[in-house]
Amino acid sequence: MRLRHVIAGFVAALWAGLAAAQPLTIERFGSFHVGGRLVEVTGKPIVEYTPTVGGAPLRIDPNGTYMVGQMYARFMVPSPQRGAAPLMLWHGAYLTGVTWETTPDGREGWEHFFLRRGWATYVTDAVERGRSGAAMSPEIYGQAIHLPTVNPWERFRIGDGPGSFARGSVLPGNQFPAEREPYLAFMRQVVARYLGTDDDVIAAYVALLERVGPSVVIAHSQGGAFAWQVAQRRPDLFRALVLVEPAGTGLTAEAAKLREVPTLLVYGDYVDADPRWSVIRRNARAFSDAVRAAGGSVEDVDLPARGIRGNSHMVMMDRNSDAVAALVQDWLEARGLWR
Amino acid sequence: MRLRHVIAGFVAALWAGLAAAQPLTIERFGSFHVGGRLVEVTGKPIVEYTPTVGGAPLRIDPNGTYMVGQMYARFMVPSPQRGAAPLMLWHGAYLTGVTWETTPDGREGWEHFFLRRGWATYVTDAVERGRSGAAMSPEIYGQAIHLPTVNPWERFRIGDGPGSFARGSVLPGNQFPAEREPYLAFMRQVVARYLGTDDDVIAAYVALLERVGPSVVIAHSQGGAFAWQVAQRRPDLFRALVLVEPAGTGLTAEAAKLREVPTLLVYGDYVDADPRWSVIRRNARAFSDAVRAAGGSVEDVDLPARGIRGNSHMVMMDRNSDAVAALVQDWLEARGLWR
Repeated sequence: MRLRHVIAGFVAALWAGLAAAQPLTIERFGSFHVGGRLVEVTGKPIVEYTPTVGGAPLRIDPNGTYMVGQMYARFMVPSPQRGAAPLMLWHGAYLTGVTWETTPDGREGWEHFFLRRGWATYVTDAVERGRSGAAMSPEIYGQAIHLPTVNPWERFRIGDGPGSFARGSVLPGNQFPAEREPYLAFMRQVVARYLGTDDDVIAAYVALLERVGPSVVIAHSQGGAFAWQVAQRRPDLFRALVLVEPAGTGLTAEAAKLREVPTLLVYGDYVDADPRWSVIRRNARAFSDAVRAAGGSVEDVDLPARGIRGNSHMVMMDRNSDAVAALVQDWLEARGLWR
Repeated sequence: MRLRHVIAGFVAALWAGLAAAQPLTIERFGSFHVGGRLVEVTGKPIVEYTPTVGGAPLRIDPNGTYMVGQMYARFMVPSPQRGAAPLMLWHGAYLTGVTWETTPDGREGWEHFFLRRGWATYVTDAVERGRSGAAMSPEIYGQAIHLPTVNPWERFRIGDGPGSFARGSVLPGNQFPAEREPYLAFMRQVVARYLGTDDDVIAAYVALLERVGPSVVIAHSQGGAFAWQVAQRRPDLFRALVLVEPAGTGLTAEAAKLREVPTLLVYGDYVDADPRWSVIRRNARAFSDAVRAAGGSVEDVDLPARGIRGNSHMVMMDRNSDAVAALVQDWLEARGLWR
């Protein structure tokens, strides 16, 4: 069983390497924003400055209406299309859609993997992150929270526990590109997060799916928690749900709403040994049981049990990211979502 | 002369419409970050919160080192390539690379236009905007400035002067999609700007060109001022410079450094009647004269004089955006930069 998975992973990686060399035919591509609402800001002082050499003085009255809560989406539609539905890629907290566009060591990301297999891909930046906009803080979304370089190293199961960033040590067999340059490349992607955005994020994801139509949603970490909650509001807009280490769950009282949404959970290595991720996973297992009890289908994949070892929380950035993507692709194929 | 330009514009728009229906062959695409530096933040209180339903409490110590000043770039390389160099698209203040990816009325942007003609395109988000990251404010880059909905309408020569947003009135023949929905689509793209980013922005653009190699740079507004200043530092990395309504200039004392950088200036309508844009344009004309006096080549195109009327400051978003892109393409072809 294990050897079969290892060989399958090797073949998938080889195929990905060969596919990466091939040109892609794109039917169309572009970007748009969805959702958002107008808010009124008052009582702010006028701002005056002269921008750059050769410019002219500028006087900005910051009082007035603002568009906030919108979300950016970029799409690429390949030809021929082989996915039975559009494929959404939703990132986690403190990150943007860049999560899916590349890896810290400069390989192709999951966006490439699925696009090369004929899926129309939609990469988004959650509300108030990346290209989705930037509202006044703390007025609109509360305090901004920022992550110093030590934080993801020790929290995302790259390093071996507290103090590992200072030691420069990683978990045994760690697959995250943890040398100085790729790690800093990862830190360049990190953005701020705000505590008051959840409702707008969920509303924007609903608006996205209403615009694009029923989709396969692949979501990571905080994005996974949002995906479960969005699916409970509009299960009709989900063809399948792939949750990569979701950082939270849906509402247990509404578990039955997920009955018709086939769901795959994927976890990397060292989850149960981690004081925080083990709790989050336990919550996800209990929630999955509630969905199953209501007649739903949730498959829970432990990557190490499949012979895929050393994955950090940032599964799609790890050195074996293509092997995990191949496992997701297989699962989608088995559900008849690829032709 | 004028009729010839009108016909050329019509043919270009027709060609763009036909081209838009054609699939694209992409040799490779992806994204990366360049530049940035590590800064130390101290003396901040610990942040504690429980993210989302089913999550686990989180305790973040925001003190430590941060990566700031990096810049996001996304590239698409078509096959076959017909541009003699990579083509950079640098946006203006309060905006991101989305400037080039679409128009407020949902047509294809300048990125599509040039990609469809065989240019390898690089779309960036200037430092501290969009996907380039988000440093602590005001600690790192000073005060954040935000634009209410009224501001671009009255400042970017869409509306006919002060009070025009409230009146809902536009300049005669205005080409910006100014109905409520496209205007709000534009406002969804608007992000914050910080007054202390200029040095990091310029350093990051230099890092981008060092990575990609000598390029054609198309830059808008604030991006145009940066482009002139970057070109003065590294003229060897510029094959040509196209400045769409630059919001500033380079340093007059160093005008001679631009001797080998063929430059095109493009201005829309109603510039000289605008109290602020007329000053900025006068500065750019004086600076261009200094470059010419030093032996350089700067061509200054007034779109209305070529029969292309009604353009706002957001030329690449206006309804006739393809006609202006075609003029830029013609200019690049005439310089032997397209084969």
